[in-house]
Amino acid sequence: MKKLAIAGALAASSLGGCAATDATSYPGGAQARGHGAAAVAQVAPGMARYSSEYVDTALWERPGLAPRDRSIVTVSALISRNQLVPLEAQLERALGNGVTPAELSELITHIAFYAGWGNATGAAEVARRVFERHGVRPEQLPAAAGELLPLNEKEEADRAAFVSASFGEVSPGVVENTTRLLFRDAWLRPGLAPRDKSLVTVSSLVAAGQIAQVPVHLNKGMNNGLTQAEASEMLTQLAFYAGWPNVFSALPVFKDVFAKRSRGEAGQR
Amino acid sequence: MKKLAIAGALAASSLGGCAATDATSYPGGAQARGHGAAAVAQVAPGMARYSSEYVDTALWERPGLAPRDRSIVTVSALISRNQLVPLEAQLERALGNGVTPAELSELITHIAFYAGWGNATGAAEVARRVFERHGVRPEQLPAAAGELLPLNEKEEADRAAFVSASFGEVSPGVVENTTRLLFRDAWLRPGLAPRDKSLVTVSSLVAAGQIAQVPVHLNKGMNNGLTQAEASEMLTQLAFYAGWPNVFSALPVFKDVFAKRSRGEAGQR
Amino acid sequence: MKKLAIAGALAASSLGGCAATDATSYPGGAQARGHGAAAVAQVAPGMARYSSEYVDTALWERPGLAPRDRSIVTVSALISRNQLVPLEAQLERALGNGVTPAELSELITHIAFYAGWGNATGAAEVARRVFERHGVRPEQLPAAAGELLPLNEKEEADRAAFVSASFGEVSPGVVENTTRLLFRDAWLRPGLAPRDKSLVTVSSLVAAGQIAQVPVHLNKGMNNGLTQAEASEMLTQLAFYAGWPNVFSALPVFKDVFAKRSRGEAGQR
Repeated sequence: MKKLAIAGALAASSLGGCAATDATSYPGGAQARGHGAAAVAQVAPGMARYSSEYVDTALWERPGLAPRDRSIVTVSALISRNQLVPLEAQLERALGNGVTPAELSELITHIAFYAGWGNATGAAEVARRVFERHGVRPEQLPAAAGELLPLNEKEEADRAAFVSASFGEVSPGVVENTTRLLFRDAWLRPGLAPRDKSLVTVSSLVAAGQIAQVPVHLNKGMNNGLTQAEASEMLTQLAFYAGWPNVFSALPVFKDVFAKRSRGEAGQR
Repeated sequence: MKKLAIAGALAASSLGGCAATDATSYPGGAQARGHGAAAVAQVAPGMARYSSEYVDTALWERPGLAPRDRSIVTVSALISRNQLVPLEAQLERALGNGVTPAELSELITHIAFYAGWGNATGAAEVARRVFERHGVRPEQLPAAAGELLPLNEKEEADRAAFVSASFGEVSPGVVENTTRLLFRDAWLRPGLAPRDKSLVTVSSLVAAGQIAQVPVHLNKGMNNGLTQAEASEMLTQLAFYAGWPNVFSALPVFKDVFAKRSRGEAGQR
Repeated sequence: MKKLAIAGALAASSLGGCAATDATSYPGGAQARGHGAAAVAQVAPGMARYSSEYVDTALWERPGLAPRDRSIVTVSALISRNQLVPLEAQLERALGNGVTPAELSELITHIAFYAGWGNATGAAEVARRVFERHGVRPEQLPAAAGELLPLNEKEEADRAAFVSASFGEVSPGVVENTTRLLFRDAWLRPGLAPRDKSLVTVSSLVAAGQIAQVPVHLNKGMNNGLTQAEASEMLTQLAFYAGWPNVFSALPVFKDVFAKRSRGEAGQR
């Protein structure tokens, strides 16, 4: 796991070593986690037991989805649900699980489109505290602009034509910005792999109960390396962080995507 | 109404006596309520009038749903919508309306599954302040684990079989955890009656706009003693705390459940 | 643009002049905006570039929807999504764009019904700080009660009959309050024009993913002067503040409303 420079007063409280699944072991994690978890322990012993026996521990060690990916899923769900209090501890856990500061930076940039500019702004404020605690330097973060990943022009032309035909007269502004900012820019930023951008997007959609766009984005992710076993385990993780109802709404949608892909009908909208 | 021990500096500001419907009368209520209500009075005189004439007063005195139940509904809606600022005053009102600290503790544990671990953590932080203000002692709260309510094994076997057949291959993790943690554990914790757990769950679903799961949970509640008149008044209460759109989405779903139950088609999914 | 009285310590930090599209130029705007924007600049350079090149600048200068209306849309979306951190800067921008304190007051009163009493309470707290910074006096704000706008009795009788027939037995409380508080009171308050109340309502619905009620409210707004070009640009604005998924859910609904209106089937439910 990456060593992270630790600066400031909080360094004194950091714990040595890194346990891959326990947020308290990460530098700063004890302090960040303490806030919410201490309240839960004091007020809701039942919930505290589920947390200590499973949600904070065994859930993260389940096979099928690596801890690093579980962190991307969890952080995305919390940002989409504007859960800024537990977000801090989960950002600490993400760093400990191997998500780089650069990747967290790109996660916030990407999720701004899917969870909205307000949610991403709130998340940036929490991330700033975490980055300062870890002494993250500006040069560790992705550039504001730069070389982009290659674009599949045919696929993009098809997407743009479909959206333009459907909605070009309803809101030309939305159609233009979707092409210009989202598909010819944001999705092509190199600092977060395409598969990981899809982890962020699908998690955000499920956590916000927006299942209509799940098929296109789940297919996109699976076309870029997300396996069915991993997608299945995203739901196990999201049941806790997005809530059972959102996951039960997503299950039939995931089921349908898996079934179509098995039948060779890949990439359906 | 229960006498609650009051500790700490805030005791000095408590008002004497308890008016069953006014949050300011509860120990600590004036301070907790003051925060949000003072801003509303200063900024939005129209809203302040609706609050003082109805939403904070007459709404709570309507027949059909007891003030204690209205508190469970309101607290659940606010936690589901991550409304931590007004939550504090509503927790005070809940205590004044006869919801015990133990029941509030179990409400948070239960709602963690339905509104997500993040929402419940935020709620626990607010509840901690309220509990400290009232001198709630750890022994007043439910145990982390202990004897569970009896389980209707046939009903649970049917539910598990249905979910497993539908989604066992999509996400075995979700299916397992739903059985193990939710139906064979959380729903059977004794500190909050089954009918009340359903009040929490249905309110959470409506407040989050997740109407797909309302039928099964509304039926579950009504099978455990929630009357149609009470369910009807949940919606009157939720119109203010979940917003009119969520309630208008829920009305046809409640209508259909009521109709099926009248025709003797009880407990439909 | 309106001159606003500035009071208090923050006056010292105000910037001279007013740029119609940049929130930092408004008295207090630099301080309010600095908080969220500085974190974004530090943590997510990609997002910061989109903000400075488009979302905070060019988006607001697009033709089709005036900056004042864009502010009403944006503030409504943020309140509905409980985004209190970026709300402060957007309230400053709204004042700079010509939304009066009285109109912001009525926006909060109106949105209490659509986004819920909790969301509106949180917004009132943020607005209080902004109003204090600008020295807004109580006499500038609308009265708690007073003369109402005229009511189209036939239209209201039709609406009430429809809702009563559909849901009168499901929740008489909701049906009564919808008539008494919402349509015979709140919608008739004079301090915010009917067209603008519809801007608030439709934005709130889209930002909360509640598209089922969009047709009736979009039609209501368009019956009161909202043009199709303006409605189209609401979606361009909301893509950033409500997130792309909510806007993509709204596009087919707006499309259908526009098509029916073109065919002369105005005001469909």
